[in-house]
Amino acid sequence: MDSAPRRLVELTTHESLRLLGCASFGRIVFTAQALPAIRPINHIVDGDAVIVRTHLGAATGDAVGVVVAYQVDEIDPVTHVGWSVTLTGIARQVHDPRDVARYQELLRPWVNGQRDEIIRIQPELVTGYRLTTDQGPG
Amino acid sequence: MDSAPRRLVELTTHESLRLLGCASFGRIVFTAQALPAIRPINHIVDGDAVIVRTHLGAATGDAVGVVVAYQVDEIDPVTHVGWSVTLTGIARQVHDPRDVARYQELLRPWVNGQRDEIIRIQPELVTGYRLTTDQGPG
Repeated sequence: MDSAPRRLVELTTHESLRLLGCASFGRIVFTAQALPAIRPINHIVDGDAVIVRTHLGAATGDAVGVVVAYQVDEIDPVTHVGWSVTLTGIARQVHDPRDVARYQELLRPWVNGQRDEIIRIQPELVTGYRLTTDQGPG
Repeated sequence: MDSAPRRLVELTTHESLRLLGCASFGRIVFTAQALPAIRPINHIVDGDAVIVRTHLGAATGDAVGVVVAYQVDEIDPVTHVGWSVTLTGIARQVHDPRDVARYQELLRPWVNGQRDEIIRIQPELVTGYRLTTDQGPG
């Protein structure tokens, strides 16, 4: 129940990336018109990078890219036990035609007809934790 | 299935706030040390404001507050139908002792022993959408 005491256990980077790789979607966090923005989205993991298909504005198209966070969680709506993983890194548009074709095949957008690019997020920082009760793992 | 065509239907502000009020947790999006940050958290809705109990840094304690986003979704991990609601507004720490006491009673933190304040998010912007398949509502 919600009133049960809960502990927050930090996850290793390895375990965080494993959970991220198992999840089918997450949320990209970025800045849009100087305001914090968040968008649920599906992803794939390629090596140590997260690949998404969306449109975040012009800045991801240049060589510098933009800093974003990408977050995935699985939290029980009743007991609130579960886990959350967030990675922070530079988002850059993928330009190589072979990579674009491969990612487009693997990563189907949720909604057709919307403008999107293939974006690679290279994590610089990975944090994750598990919320558990003292009764056992969540 | 993931390959089924999906439509994105915009929700009214009223419907977005209703869904937010029914949800037991969401994610607060803010800036921490100049980086995008996101944290899953539980909330209550009081009037047209969202109340959370967390610590976002010193800036929420002053009169100006900080701009944050608060996001709630319910998306099926397999079919990816569902909905997402995001509100954007100023987060300010609640100082009135009676309000603090009332909110502390209503809003139990997930993890004990962590520093937190009562924070009121006054929405300036509410956006929501429903992802549905052509077969029917999600």
